Amino acid sequence: MASLWNNRISFSIFGESHGPAIGVVIDNLPPGEYIRTEEIAAFLARRAPKKNKTSTPRSEKDMPQIMSGVCNNRTTGTPLCAFIQNTDTHSADYNNVRSLARPGHADYTGAQRYQGFNDVRGGGHFSGRLTAPLVFAGAVCAQILERRGIYTGAHISEIHSIKDKAFDEIKVSRDDIVALRKKDFPVIDDAAGEKMTADIVKAHDALDSVGGIIECASVNVPCGIGSPIFDGLENTISQLVFGIPAVKGIEFGAGFMASKMLGSQNNDEFYVDDHGHVLTKTNHHGGILGGISSGMPVIFRVAIKPTPSISRPQHTIDYKQMMNDVINIKGRHDPCIVPRAVPCVEAAANIALLNHILDYPNFR
Amino acid sequence: MASLWNNRISFSIFGESHGPAIGVVIDNLPPGEYIRTEEIAAFLARRAPKKNKTSTPRSEKDMPQIMSGVCNNRTTGTPLCAFIQNTDTHSADYNNVRSLARPGHADYTGAQRYQGFNDVRGGGHFSGRLTAPLVFAGAVCAQILERRGIYTGAHISEIHSIKDKAFDEIKVSRDDIVALRKKDFPVIDDAAGEKMTADIVKAHDALDSVGGIIECASVNVPCGIGSPIFDGLENTISQLVFGIPAVKGIEFGAGFMASKMLGSQNNDEFYVDDHGHVLTKTNHHGGILGGISSGMPVIFRVAIKPTPSISRPQHTIDYKQMMNDVINIKGRHDPCIVPRAVPCVEAAANIALLNHILDYPNFR
Amino acid sequence: MASLWNNRISFSIFGESHGPAIGVVIDNLPPGEYIRTEEIAAFLARRAPKKNKTSTPRSEKDMPQIMSGVCNNRTTGTPLCAFIQNTDTHSADYNNVRSLARPGHADYTGAQRYQGFNDVRGGGHFSGRLTAPLVFAGAVCAQILERRGIYTGAHISEIHSIKDKAFDEIKVSRDDIVALRKKDFPVIDDAAGEKMTADIVKAHDALDSVGGIIECASVNVPCGIGSPIFDGLENTISQLVFGIPAVKGIEFGAGFMASKMLGSQNNDEFYVDDHGHVLTKTNHHGGILGGISSGMPVIFRVAIKPTPSISRPQHTIDYKQMMNDVINIKGRHDPCIVPRAVPCVEAAANIALLNHILDYPNFR
Amino acid sequence: MASLWNNRISFSIFGESHGPAIGVVIDNLPPGEYIRTEEIAAFLARRAPKKNKTSTPRSEKDMPQIMSGVCNNRTTGTPLCAFIQNTDTHSADYNNVRSLARPGHADYTGAQRYQGFNDVRGGGHFSGRLTAPLVFAGAVCAQILERRGIYTGAHISEIHSIKDKAFDEIKVSRDDIVALRKKDFPVIDDAAGEKMTADIVKAHDALDSVGGIIECASVNVPCGIGSPIFDGLENTISQLVFGIPAVKGIEFGAGFMASKMLGSQNNDEFYVDDHGHVLTKTNHHGGILGGISSGMPVIFRVAIKPTPSISRPQHTIDYKQMMNDVINIKGRHDPCIVPRAVPCVEAAANIALLNHILDYPNFR
Repeated sequence: MASLWNNRISFSIFGESHGPAIGVVIDNLPPGEYIRTEEIAAFLARRAPKKNKTSTPRSEKDMPQIMSGVCNNRTTGTPLCAFIQNTDTHSADYNNVRSLARPGHADYTGAQRYQGFNDVRGGGHFSGRLTAPLVFAGAVCAQILERRGIYTGAHISEIHSIKDKAFDEIKVSRDDIVALRKKDFPVIDDAAGEKMTADIVKAHDALDSVGGIIECASVNVPCGIGSPIFDGLENTISQLVFGIPAVKGIEFGAGFMASKMLGSQNNDEFYVDDHGHVLTKTNHHGGILGGISSGMPVIFRVAIKPTPSISRPQHTIDYKQMMNDVINIKGRHDPCIVPRAVPCVEAAANIALLNHILDYPNFR
Repeated sequence: MASLWNNRISFSIFGESHGPAIGVVIDNLPPGEYIRTEEIAAFLARRAPKKNKTSTPRSEKDMPQIMSGVCNNRTTGTPLCAFIQNTDTHSADYNNVRSLARPGHADYTGAQRYQGFNDVRGGGHFSGRLTAPLVFAGAVCAQILERRGIYTGAHISEIHSIKDKAFDEIKVSRDDIVALRKKDFPVIDDAAGEKMTADIVKAHDALDSVGGIIECASVNVPCGIGSPIFDGLENTISQLVFGIPAVKGIEFGAGFMASKMLGSQNNDEFYVDDHGHVLTKTNHHGGILGGISSGMPVIFRVAIKPTPSISRPQHTIDYKQMMNDVINIKGRHDPCIVPRAVPCVEAAANIALLNHILDYPNFR
Repeated sequence: MASLWNNRISFSIFGESHGPAIGVVIDNLPPGEYIRTEEIAAFLARRAPKKNKTSTPRSEKDMPQIMSGVCNNRTTGTPLCAFIQNTDTHSADYNNVRSLARPGHADYTGAQRYQGFNDVRGGGHFSGRLTAPLVFAGAVCAQILERRGIYTGAHISEIHSIKDKAFDEIKVSRDDIVALRKKDFPVIDDAAGEKMTADIVKAHDALDSVGGIIECASVNVPCGIGSPIFDGLENTISQLVFGIPAVKGIEFGAGFMASKMLGSQNNDEFYVDDHGHVLTKTNHHGGILGGISSGMPVIFRVAIKPTPSISRPQHTIDYKQMMNDVINIKGRHDPCIVPRAVPCVEAAANIALLNHILDYPNFR
Repeated sequence: MASLWNNRISFSIFGESHGPAIGVVIDNLPPGEYIRTEEIAAFLARRAPKKNKTSTPRSEKDMPQIMSGVCNNRTTGTPLCAFIQNTDTHSADYNNVRSLARPGHADYTGAQRYQGFNDVRGGGHFSGRLTAPLVFAGAVCAQILERRGIYTGAHISEIHSIKDKAFDEIKVSRDDIVALRKKDFPVIDDAAGEKMTADIVKAHDALDSVGGIIECASVNVPCGIGSPIFDGLENTISQLVFGIPAVKGIEFGAGFMASKMLGSQNNDEFYVDDHGHVLTKTNHHGGILGGISSGMPVIFRVAIKPTPSISRPQHTIDYKQMMNDVINIKGRHDPCIVPRAVPCVEAAANIALLNHILDYPNFR
């Protein structure tokens, strides 16, 4: 189903960018889980546009209203619906996209898929705005996991080839994750972050855009979460992560680098430490073997393409007239969506982990 | 569900490496589709071990028997079950893996997931042998698609950093795909292929293993296939591809490279050619925008880790005793599984495409 | 999933009786379908409480707001969310139900299922009010089907043993269905209807309640809709119909009566009529054979229990204290919910039919 | 999906009556459950044809071979495939059904659904033989439930209007259920059973057939199993039960009789007994309220139509020629399938209960 993800938990995302509202229905959450709206607000705030040149000036009052499924601040166990009204929409900006396909966007493919009936204003159902309900759902899942010690966090690993340190390098811990959440520009190495910011501003000033890589880690995931073949953590996380527009790739642990190693280099040897914990000496497997968590940090990286909306004339087609044309995208757009995609990637990881952990005999 | 993939089509894969049989049930195939068993056999033969140093000497008679769903060589529309008996199994080889976790394998995580009840002989349900039913399913889907002009093929894009040409470079066509299928070692540039083969033999002789990258392309995919958010081609292909053991990453189109480009470089400008076809000047988007096919070739790359089974002593744990130990893996193992994974990746792409095309109004 | 129905179409119903709102997200509707809100309003009005002694005095402004999935009065193909705010709620009425289990209600079972965390006000997620989103979804599906000539209608077949005529008896047609929709009390034989109404008023005055049977028919359903074993029309319709509270049984065609017949009596002989149409002489099979429509009217009957809320003292338990007690239900309640359940049953049939017809090659 | 049931547990049933084999893949069973094949054999034996006039003389060696998912007599947690080879098939008997629609069968509707490509020999995928894999799956689930004290049994409640006693009447217990399993003709009142048998023989001798009603009970089901709206016990049981050919109706508890009662008669008052157990004085609700088990016996009744295959000439159509014709069904057929349907109904109940109980916090 297009916008429904149905596993142990289900999420049904709805809405169009310039319609009355967007939102999500989450089914099969465990009952009795305490929900702090301020934590949800903080999670969503990290996705909200920043008030500077690195982001779009569109101001969104995106705090979702919870319509069902929470009573006395606890999940009831029945479907949780969250609802975000669309208020600050400037449909006029999009008048000329009605039949001009924006390069890198789903205007043309969406029109073909839906035979021209889809709502195209602001990208409609394909808009990046639809990540707000995803982030909401992730924030709910995150709280349930964190109460059990499982923390997930992400940082900007790379912008336009400028690199941050890696989670593996710093032996990522819960403290690192908590520290990253407090940063305006979530990088491990702030010096690298400054170079990245400068690069984004430069792209903005050049009416261009840049992409990057997000690295995500989940710590304290118990061994044994996930299932083989089509329902492992990698399958689930990747299926969810590709629900974030602009994602073009994902790799777990050593990922593409593993393909360049010898088996003797890439294999992670197991050992039991002095406390009786099973660990691996290295973590090239990214905390997942056979689709199932190993107890080591679950680590993956996601490639984000540069924002396709750029304020330069581009050749394209009018897909109703089927004629060549030139497009000038006005609107308000992020020169780099990587910072705002960070909580989206975390959301996907949290959803995947909670989903699988519900099968786990010792969960509760 | 662990080994069930349930979308417009469903696949339920069953079996353990050293149990009586493995197989697959495919539901919701369209009725009346002609099934050539010789084409299925040819597809499966490309997954079978080769009789040389690049592959395991285990001989498999893997031609599946079709038990249902095909009548007079045509699909009936009711569930198709294919069945492969396990004959050539040497369980003795695996005696010492019963409680020693092979590094890079799911022995330890599987035991935790299934509380020690899973069949561990030969990797059990986690064995690479379980890709045979996947390939069978892919071969069935491929025939249905090819009758409609849609061809999918893959090549070895890289082994241990030795690179083949890229599909984008040669403007991949149906003829390229057909030619690759006939090659013992499917590369575009045979000179690169010889270097790769030499490297695999070298790894074999050093009791080591190597990994690589597989690139897959589907041509003549009509525009409009796939759905937004969680049910796009990228979501579906990646969910299926991570069903192949040893896959550690996937990228579509420019993939991770897109994260290093400017928007003005990465955007693919649309145009209408002299025949009235909509095309893009470049194909950094890999034939998919918003989860939906654009009409350009669907191209993705998959990272395969080096075979984890290597014939060298490795440190590990005994996961029943929870003690440190050393493992010597005997058995028969491929020094590089990349060549045998090529049809597996194609299978995943074929399944994903047929699945989504069934929604397409003009299909039939 | 509790409140999610996921087949070719999916419905995710959310909300609690006294929470901020209830609603539904419908995914995978075909794009471009014209939606008349006045037809939806008329469908929902038949579910709304009547202003007389046969129904509850609670006034509901239940016209749902469409939040997404419809643009220029046509379905976009992306998820359709409809939203009904709860306004006229008197939570005080329910104060004493917080721990006294109302006989015939889900108070005790719901508390056990959700470990006491579910919202119990007004029945919470178990309330009959949750049929409003179901009816909305059915009304949307009905329009899409009616544009293709497929009409579904139901009548009150029996109230407290007082019987109406049967659809089979009158050889139900589209005109009969349209006529029934216009009646305040939908029966074929209005004289029987008057007796039923009198009986309901009598029950009301006796602080008691009555149940009944609803019969539903769909005409002009083409032959070939539905699938074998678990996914036939009977499976789907019954799964949906038991989503309506108070339903205790369902039968198709001759139903339980078929169990009392000889094979030679019950079998429906086929024939081709002068127009080349395939028909059966009788319709004991209720238009479904092997889960698949035969082209004859699809007919089924649904047993509705008497409203469990009655204004008499009843013995029960306090399920928090686990003590015997007596309950006096105040609130406002229908002495008979059968009339209001009529459009609910039609909704279930419409959803089931549209769901299966999407697989049909000639649909569109 | 046609022959796939996918909930917490999934079942994928495959095969055609006269094809090489039939079977089932069950996914997501809990690991470590002891499986006694003799119990499965005993369960299946109750479905097998009897050696007398009440049943078909076709002898089936239906003991399924387990191909995967069981190791050392315990479930592994990975998919369990069971496989039944078709040996005793007389396709010649069915030669004249190739285009003559047997009244009451799915020949015509199946041909329309699958555009003439389905396997029609012996009813193909629509054959009652496909209940063997269902019964196998039910037998596996039954063992897992019985080890936790939950017993399910059914009896022949009615044949051609001849009635047995009701479960409610005898306050059904585990002992009653165990006793019924040992009977050749499972009725509570053996005198009624003798009348039923005589009636079946009479129908057989008259080249006719009879139907009946099966009543099923599950005892010791803890309170709190099942979910609201679309995923309650009634939804699940009915969806599965309609997977048994010839089922035309289902009712829970008082069922259709409830529709004839007053609320004050039908409501089941709760009380706490001396042991602190919550019970209801009557069980009109059939052990289910709001889709969720109440702790009282889960009781439902299923209407079975008379066997449609009768050895008399019947008017029908040739659905290829679209001409009126007369059919003489030869083959071997049960004059009454009700006795053989008893374990099928039990299987459906066991599958539904195990499926929902996996969500139950105290399960294990």
